[in-house]
Amino acid sequence: MNRILVALGGNALGDDPEKQLNIVRQTAKHMVDLIEAGYELVISHGNGPQVGMISLAMEGNHMPLPECVAMSQGYIGYHLQNGIGVELRKRNIKKAVVSLITQVIVNREDEAFNKPSKPIGKFYTKEEAIKIQKLKGYTMMEDANRGYRRAVPSPKPIDVVEKEAIKSLLEQGHIVIAGGGGGVPVVRKGDLLVGVDAVIDKDLASALIAKQVDADCLLILTAVDRVAINFGKPDQINLDRMTGEEAYKYMERGEFAPGSMLPKVMAAIDFVESKKGRQAIIASLGKVKEALGGKSGTWIYK
Amino acid sequence: MNRILVALGGNALGDDPEKQLNIVRQTAKHMVDLIEAGYELVISHGNGPQVGMISLAMEGNHMPLPECVAMSQGYIGYHLQNGIGVELRKRNIKKAVVSLITQVIVNREDEAFNKPSKPIGKFYTKEEAIKIQKLKGYTMMEDANRGYRRAVPSPKPIDVVEKEAIKSLLEQGHIVIAGGGGGVPVVRKGDLLVGVDAVIDKDLASALIAKQVDADCLLILTAVDRVAINFGKPDQINLDRMTGEEAYKYMERGEFAPGSMLPKVMAAIDFVESKKGRQAIIASLGKVKEALGGKSGTWIYK
Repeated sequence: MNRILVALGGNALGDDPEKQLNIVRQTAKHMVDLIEAGYELVISHGNGPQVGMISLAMEGNHMPLPECVAMSQGYIGYHLQNGIGVELRKRNIKKAVVSLITQVIVNREDEAFNKPSKPIGKFYTKEEAIKIQKLKGYTMMEDANRGYRRAVPSPKPIDVVEKEAIKSLLEQGHIVIAGGGGGVPVVRKGDLLVGVDAVIDKDLASALIAKQVDADCLLILTAVDRVAINFGKPDQINLDRMTGEEAYKYMERGEFAPGSMLPKVMAAIDFVESKKGRQAIIASLGKVKEALGGKSGTWIYK
Repeated sequence: MNRILVALGGNALGDDPEKQLNIVRQTAKHMVDLIEAGYELVISHGNGPQVGMISLAMEGNHMPLPECVAMSQGYIGYHLQNGIGVELRKRNIKKAVVSLITQVIVNREDEAFNKPSKPIGKFYTKEEAIKIQKLKGYTMMEDANRGYRRAVPSPKPIDVVEKEAIKSLLEQGHIVIAGGGGGVPVVRKGDLLVGVDAVIDKDLASALIAKQVDADCLLILTAVDRVAINFGKPDQINLDRMTGEEAYKYMERGEFAPGSMLPKVMAAIDFVESKKGRQAIIASLGKVKEALGGKSGTWIYK
């Protein structure tokens, strides 16, 4: 195992600018531990709170969602490459680390476009929501009893536009940050690639990038040590390892929470089933080394 | 002449999101003309209106200026790589184009930090400006009789943190977009690189990148066809070519407007004097081909 795609979750990033930079500096240490251990790294990351903040702030400027995703890639990418760069210099490792603005192609015929499911942006009252729905044609949805928000589709990632650039940098020994926030969602329209108001799941996008750069391992980092079944019940079982087939069965049984562990397990299955020898690990950020040593995390294999 | 750094000015980008994307698609055609002619391209760009818009919108989130610059690199970079990618596919050219988040190191001892000169953000009345100056310690300046704005320093770019990544991609035949808005300004502080509230001139940053990637030509694109002396006077002379020395003399004589032609000429001089055989061209975006053929633009050489 040599090439790893690390998918960083929200807990690796923090929320406001100052806190984010400090948390990212800790995250950077874990990433450079992997570099020191000899792995090649592509790093992807979520952007939920950040793109939410940006799209709210930019509402007056009529900034479309794809542009906001690109901004969040710039913002978070700067922090990550700054933090990792510092850690590399401290340990005297001569490697470059850089964030690439990444577009991800989705299919216009994806059924997700018929049922927008991902809440984004500002909260509104029911009355306001109805008005906006009529005025702008947005789908509005109630979000966890906190009010109404705009819902956008979450289509499946099909292709990473910048995959050749990612590969080139990896082959030169550099550390690449790419696919932030699941990528800027674009659809083909003749020769054009047109940005669409959608949010691509970052774990699914990470699995796609991992496949396209022929990674050996998809390492999804989150806030818990292991994937569990019967989660939160007296008979909860934390899993050390499972096959893609087992994972699929658990998934079918509804063991994993949508928007939380479910997309991670789906991404893991997608990756390990795509080629022999590919493994996925779902583990906690603070136990990265232990996870790769087989002492923490849930290993998923074909 | 083979490797060119193209510095795009505001007229290559446009202002609001929709207009920007359309203007960028035109700009992309000119860029791909150069690719077709066999040149290797690094593209840098300004971000004045964009970072102004972003920093204003994000004021409530206490987003520091370096983070706003990184966001503008993401936003503009996405449009540029999208537009250029479309044009490459149309012409069946198999090259990747990608934007890199770019940090540029400035010197904390740079005298620019003692005299903030670059107005950014919102306009205030004199009374408000005095209050903000006391409260936040900002330097406030009157800006062209339109009110008071915060002034930030414009220090000299010293080093591009991501230069190795830029070079690697170029060597693999890719088109690189880097150094947007002059780069995210950072200073060394022990092992850290810390973002500072400053704006690096994009033409000077472009000259630095051009030197660091050993470009043969620095092509600065703007709204006029040629550099002029006695500009706007009856005896205006448009220059076809000048040596670095001549350019320096004109500059000393005050021929070039600060914040407009002056930084372009300074960047050109800096680049051509740095190594034998290096040339700079200041030309208009619409006449890129003519300029490289010697039929438009002002050529500057050692």
